[in-house]
Amino acid sequence: MTFDHLVRTLSKLPGIGRRSAERMAYKLVLRDNQLLKELQNALEQAGTSICCCSSCGKITEKDQDPCRLCSDASRDNSLLCIVEEPGDIQLVEGSGGFQGRYFCLMGKLSPMQGETVENQRLKQLNARIAHWGTKEIILAMNGDVESDATAQYLQETLSEVGVRITRLAAGIPAGSGLGYSDPVTLSRAIQGRQTL
Amino acid sequence: MTFDHLVRTLSKLPGIGRRSAERMAYKLVLRDNQLLKELQNALEQAGTSICCCSSCGKITEKDQDPCRLCSDASRDNSLLCIVEEPGDIQLVEGSGGFQGRYFCLMGKLSPMQGETVENQRLKQLNARIAHWGTKEIILAMNGDVESDATAQYLQETLSEVGVRITRLAAGIPAGSGLGYSDPVTLSRAIQGRQTL
Repeated sequence: MTFDHLVRTLSKLPGIGRRSAERMAYKLVLRDNQLLKELQNALEQAGTSICCCSSCGKITEKDQDPCRLCSDASRDNSLLCIVEEPGDIQLVEGSGGFQGRYFCLMGKLSPMQGETVENQRLKQLNARIAHWGTKEIILAMNGDVESDATAQYLQETLSEVGVRITRLAAGIPAGSGLGYSDPVTLSRAIQGRQTL
Repeated sequence: MTFDHLVRTLSKLPGIGRRSAERMAYKLVLRDNQLLKELQNALEQAGTSICCCSSCGKITEKDQDPCRLCSDASRDNSLLCIVEEPGDIQLVEGSGGFQGRYFCLMGKLSPMQGETVENQRLKQLNARIAHWGTKEIILAMNGDVESDATAQYLQETLSEVGVRITRLAAGIPAGSGLGYSDPVTLSRAIQGRQTL
């Protein structure tokens, strides 16, 4: 049945179980026909006009490639921030603490899950480093095991390029306290302690 | 931007916040173009071919109205189960414990939220009672305050029709224990205790 098909399709979205998918489908079908139309149009547009920036991998419009950040001549070419996912670029950018260039790996090394950063993508990374004349690479990885492995791997691979390689500090989150931090976070904060 | 528009649209779905909407949008745009197409088609189909059964209010295809349950001649016409939402019909039906007819109110009385069961819908209810020759009405309402009010209101309204009116038993859920039940559930279970 059409309705069940809609529910099954919605439940393929990440984090959406059968019950949530049903609630969403009921809302779309029964209560908010406007939203159904809107979602149809948004998907249509997204399918036709969104692509990844050919330089950094950030999500952009097909008619703006390279993206807004890569084509901004005022940014600092000597810094290159490497992230795992296109969405991470937005997060780093939103922090306001970085004015350099970006490069997205489009994944991380997770051999257990069959996830690897393609060789192709690493070649592109080398091309970007040469293009921008990068002096320092900042690895903006997440805090999990696979991300650690990815950072380690990149550090080894990039060591021969002869640029400085740094990684985001690990430590106590702003607004949080020791009592809310797990032992790993705390031990990393101690390792990375700074002179005042 | 097209991507942000997709995220904003997805976050209008019930239970979906900004972060979930972003995850969904990234999946649709970057990782699973197949799913994007599929969702587009499912919405398209849902928009054109789904309607509510003109008899009970259950979701059905436009070319099958009255729905499968209402057009099933083998069901018991003397029992009419009243539910709040179209999805509830599927739940009661799934329990396998009911073989009668259904009627969906399409809402409940919640004056605080401006929700009322339309007069129109109550007229339709009376028409269905006359049509099926209902002998007993089972109110299959939820357990919250608005549902209680709705059940109360229906009981008063329908008392003059001269049919037996019953309500689903309230009590301890199957597989659960006293320790997991809140005081209201427990007090209702005591009130509704049954002779063995």
